[in-house]
Amino acid sequence: MKNTFGNNISVTLFGESHSEYIGAVLDGFPAGVEIDTEYIDLCLLKRRGEDALSTKRREPDRVIFASGVFENRTTGSPLTVLIKNEDTRSGDYQRSVARPSHADYTAFVKYSGFEDWRGGGHFSGRLTAPLVALGAIAEQYLLKKGIKIATHIKSIGGVYDRQMTDADYGILKQKTFATLEKENEMKNAVLLAKSEGDSLGGTLETVVFGVKAGYGEPFFDSVESLLSHALFSIPAVKGVQFGAGFGFADMKGSEANDAIYCKDGEVKTKTNNAGGINGGITNGMPIVFSVALRPTPTIFKEQQSIDLITKQNVSFKAKGRHDPCIVPRAVQAVNAITALTILDIIGEK
Amino acid sequence: MKNTFGNNISVTLFGESHSEYIGAVLDGFPAGVEIDTEYIDLCLLKRRGEDALSTKRREPDRVIFASGVFENRTTGSPLTVLIKNEDTRSGDYQRSVARPSHADYTAFVKYSGFEDWRGGGHFSGRLTAPLVALGAIAEQYLLKKGIKIATHIKSIGGVYDRQMTDADYGILKQKTFATLEKENEMKNAVLLAKSEGDSLGGTLETVVFGVKAGYGEPFFDSVESLLSHALFSIPAVKGVQFGAGFGFADMKGSEANDAIYCKDGEVKTKTNNAGGINGGITNGMPIVFSVALRPTPTIFKEQQSIDLITKQNVSFKAKGRHDPCIVPRAVQAVNAITALTILDIIGEK
Amino acid sequence: MKNTFGNNISVTLFGESHSEYIGAVLDGFPAGVEIDTEYIDLCLLKRRGEDALSTKRREPDRVIFASGVFENRTTGSPLTVLIKNEDTRSGDYQRSVARPSHADYTAFVKYSGFEDWRGGGHFSGRLTAPLVALGAIAEQYLLKKGIKIATHIKSIGGVYDRQMTDADYGILKQKTFATLEKENEMKNAVLLAKSEGDSLGGTLETVVFGVKAGYGEPFFDSVESLLSHALFSIPAVKGVQFGAGFGFADMKGSEANDAIYCKDGEVKTKTNNAGGINGGITNGMPIVFSVALRPTPTIFKEQQSIDLITKQNVSFKAKGRHDPCIVPRAVQAVNAITALTILDIIGEK
Amino acid sequence: MKNTFGNNISVTLFGESHSEYIGAVLDGFPAGVEIDTEYIDLCLLKRRGEDALSTKRREPDRVIFASGVFENRTTGSPLTVLIKNEDTRSGDYQRSVARPSHADYTAFVKYSGFEDWRGGGHFSGRLTAPLVALGAIAEQYLLKKGIKIATHIKSIGGVYDRQMTDADYGILKQKTFATLEKENEMKNAVLLAKSEGDSLGGTLETVVFGVKAGYGEPFFDSVESLLSHALFSIPAVKGVQFGAGFGFADMKGSEANDAIYCKDGEVKTKTNNAGGINGGITNGMPIVFSVALRPTPTIFKEQQSIDLITKQNVSFKAKGRHDPCIVPRAVQAVNAITALTILDIIGEK
Repeated sequence: MKNTFGNNISVTLFGESHSEYIGAVLDGFPAGVEIDTEYIDLCLLKRRGEDALSTKRREPDRVIFASGVFENRTTGSPLTVLIKNEDTRSGDYQRSVARPSHADYTAFVKYSGFEDWRGGGHFSGRLTAPLVALGAIAEQYLLKKGIKIATHIKSIGGVYDRQMTDADYGILKQKTFATLEKENEMKNAVLLAKSEGDSLGGTLETVVFGVKAGYGEPFFDSVESLLSHALFSIPAVKGVQFGAGFGFADMKGSEANDAIYCKDGEVKTKTNNAGGINGGITNGMPIVFSVALRPTPTIFKEQQSIDLITKQNVSFKAKGRHDPCIVPRAVQAVNAITALTILDIIGEK
Repeated sequence: MKNTFGNNISVTLFGESHSEYIGAVLDGFPAGVEIDTEYIDLCLLKRRGEDALSTKRREPDRVIFASGVFENRTTGSPLTVLIKNEDTRSGDYQRSVARPSHADYTAFVKYSGFEDWRGGGHFSGRLTAPLVALGAIAEQYLLKKGIKIATHIKSIGGVYDRQMTDADYGILKQKTFATLEKENEMKNAVLLAKSEGDSLGGTLETVVFGVKAGYGEPFFDSVESLLSHALFSIPAVKGVQFGAGFGFADMKGSEANDAIYCKDGEVKTKTNNAGGINGGITNGMPIVFSVALRPTPTIFKEQQSIDLITKQNVSFKAKGRHDPCIVPRAVQAVNAITALTILDIIGEK
Repeated sequence: MKNTFGNNISVTLFGESHSEYIGAVLDGFPAGVEIDTEYIDLCLLKRRGEDALSTKRREPDRVIFASGVFENRTTGSPLTVLIKNEDTRSGDYQRSVARPSHADYTAFVKYSGFEDWRGGGHFSGRLTAPLVALGAIAEQYLLKKGIKIATHIKSIGGVYDRQMTDADYGILKQKTFATLEKENEMKNAVLLAKSEGDSLGGTLETVVFGVKAGYGEPFFDSVESLLSHALFSIPAVKGVQFGAGFGFADMKGSEANDAIYCKDGEVKTKTNNAGGINGGITNGMPIVFSVALRPTPTIFKEQQSIDLITKQNVSFKAKGRHDPCIVPRAVQAVNAITALTILDIIGEK
Repeated sequence: MKNTFGNNISVTLFGESHSEYIGAVLDGFPAGVEIDTEYIDLCLLKRRGEDALSTKRREPDRVIFASGVFENRTTGSPLTVLIKNEDTRSGDYQRSVARPSHADYTAFVKYSGFEDWRGGGHFSGRLTAPLVALGAIAEQYLLKKGIKIATHIKSIGGVYDRQMTDADYGILKQKTFATLEKENEMKNAVLLAKSEGDSLGGTLETVVFGVKAGYGEPFFDSVESLLSHALFSIPAVKGVQFGAGFGFADMKGSEANDAIYCKDGEVKTKTNNAGGINGGITNGMPIVFSVALRPTPTIFKEQQSIDLITKQNVSFKAKGRHDPCIVPRAVQAVNAITALTILDIIGEK
């Protein structure tokens, strides 16, 4: 199904960095839901990030509701958002050299050289903008059902923030740079990397509060399967783990197991190493996962690569505008993907 | 689609630990492929593991080809494997207590108490047996196309093996306990945990050699998306990472990027931090990923939980037969899931 | 997805006429539903038809519940039915000649000659047996939700029965040969065709009572789309029409339109030319459709065809056992497919 | 999947009659295919029909390529077409009365009253415009692979054209009113119905030349299943039949069977009653099917219906602009749906 994801409620994504529009279609979303354009704009603004830290491409990213909205409410028919590509300086991009660790070479092979290579084409992080717009709609809808999503910058370039707790939800939602204690250290690390023409990776941690027990499937649509499927579509995500994740590898069962108890008729676990999921199905505890983001591949240091057309080995330095670290901006993309996937998992009921 | 996975070539899985049969349907597989029952049996034998380390449930696991095979070749119609459940000692299992970190509670909620709870039901690791049978068929088919898959026990209970290299493929394929240098240390760790009534987790690393560049989709069916979707269906998998994975988080772009070069007309990268995938699409380098496996939740120490029916808090100790560590046995399941997913990704062409 | 159909509740079909088993997997069906094996057996018995009129292959068609049933109730996990192929006289079948209007030639091309050609292989009408078993389960479940399905032999070989009315539901459910007034004439027509070594086609009409308004999707999953998709899988179905169907072609709008009225809070239409569906969505009136069934292609008259291997033109006469008319037996297959599709459309809610 | 259709190459449709845009996304289409905008415009022009016979809504229907096209060639990424809704006179439409045999009532129920009811909303025939645009692209692509599609007006209001032959392909492609001998009689019938404030139905016949043998699946994705699934999405289609279709019901096997022969290495059948499909799979002969189209439900005669909000019974007469017969315009929609489905069936290979 390629550019479509979701069963009950699906998203179809389209566009290239320099095509006329980028956009996405949300299908199966309930009718009658009010659209909060302010919240959508806020999420898109956060996605664009702060000036000093991110790309200099400055676009208003105004969302056009092409279909599916009538009198400011969803109609139940496919809801399509469009964002016009305006500030497209194609001249900055070279076609011929495959940028290392970018999709230039793989796209060239896959699309036989016919891909729209300008600005990363369909592989551009810009494609996350319509996802963020739809994610904002999904998030607001889930909120009314008591489901809250928060994503936290856990680390950037080796600087690790403190552990997130349930109480941090409100704080994180108000921040553009979604970290708790290490904002300055992280920003300094990014600026240093930038000054060196280099880039940094990091990790994000997401918590979903309020999903009841019983959602998901053991095979093959476990909650972990569906979330990881969606998350690994975000350019730069190279690892996904739930609860204790890779930490489980060094634990004993007696340390890893989450004791179950019932209080006032509610079933809970004392710890949440499982990240809210047992056997692929939600257990009513918060869903917790984290993702690893690779450093932006575009750096301004000399690198070795090949010319795509001639296949000759070349040295080159990137030009153009690029983020030294997309971790802060990825917060919105991960939030959006999470909201849309949770929406699909719980269905429209 | 729940228990079905794959687009071009799909697998539908069915069965419960104590149902009459467990089985799986492979649909879309090419016609005329010879069935190597010896190799299937070998994989199933390895999946059952070594006596001292694994469950005492001893079943022949004879594969019945219910459909799709004629004169020992695939017919192109759905190929169905069945395995009879024979050694089912239901008496060992208690219904009433939800075993911590098991699917007992989530299944109870999801299926309103009608789930077949005997032996873990549909959530049993036993369900991986038909997957291993189909995976063996897929693996042999891929081998003829020059695609080789090897999975390596990277760590068990904090004991880490040396880094796997391309040369290790042959060695690993011949072993039941698929590690290179630390077999004894790992086994001792497992036996120690067993003697304490405890269990251990670990990590597996998989390498797929020979997949050409150009497979996969940026959104939403990246190679990472499809593999992680399938892998997270294996009970116990709680983390998946590609290439450097979570290691990317602490790298700079200049360290993380894989320099590209062309030699004798072949495009390669000097390092393979990307794990063979850029922008969700294969780049022709080996596909490398690792998974984190949680310790078996069933341990023989006292634990706190609830009675599923009465919801009363209880202390309990597990009975029955359980692996103290499923990491060695999971090698076959990961291999199989990988083979089936790669098969789907490259299509039947 | 090939041999799998349905979104919320899906069916995966497998088997060949002479494979070890034929079977089907029902996935997504609710947990806790009691299995009425008597009703399943009754439907399978009716599907086998009456001695004088149908194939002489006599098999008990005992349904094995391979998975998904525990203490005679569904578990919510995939429910798999198996039927053993026992009475398989392969000697009756010739491989070399492509029987006209059969799938012999198309299967040979599609599967490169590796298809299981014995008895029609995967194309055999026998594959409808597991569908009928699952359909019986679906039908009983729908009945509890107030949804009733009746299929009526509308015509055989030019003999047309009277128009079916709502009152005929009970009568039709009790009959093996599901017609109202022309049973003898139809049977005589079949016997005459049989005596001539020839075969007959016919039409079936199905009515689904009790589906509420609001199910289905305008694009592309209209109720008509989903039902026709499933119905055209039944071998021999070559036409599907809803309500007035092809009769609409010669009507004026003023004749075709169904006037709407409301009585006692219930919205209905005075006529039901639309067959219960407007804009692809149920309107609360009975869903009415009919299907055209081609005459069995296997006849015992001399026919012209080719040898599949040598491609030489040949004259030949069929041998073996074949129904001169499958219309009466197709009643159960159409019922089953309808029940399974309606189940999927209304979801498990 | 609702508004998405197709496996290898899929279409996602969105928009409402009076939304900002209507559009569609084509996903999986090969890269490097040149776009023939003239042919797209021609198909859209034909779809709008002739002045005297069709709706007076006059829009330029200019296609915007929002994504997936670069330097006038497809990029391999999702190709999105947009058409702006401009000439939207909402004042003509009444909300309160459910027009008989329209989707007004079913949409009201399905979308809880939040549907965009203006001009038929998502149910409007206008939604076929983006399908026709994508269909034109598909048709041109298939043409280069030797696959030609022609749709013929077989009947309107009881006036039947002569049987179409292979030689008529060229003639039909050049006509806006795609009939062979009875154009005047049909047009007169339409004008007469129009003068009476009434409407007419009809039938279309489609032939697909050049599809090789071996495409399609016995279960559940027979060529008939996939084509009928797509065709029944077109508003007004109420019947679909392949080859002799409902005519088979009155035939004997000896009349219905298509004798097979081989000439110059090519396998063909003497007749083509099967419409090019045996066992759900193409046999290399032309694929032939016909569809029944109901008369436009909007007529200007007095009708009985209900008020959607109050549920009171009312008499009313339609206002606004409506086609007295959409059969001539549906030719393009059927062509487009056919081209897109055939494209999906044969895959991008």
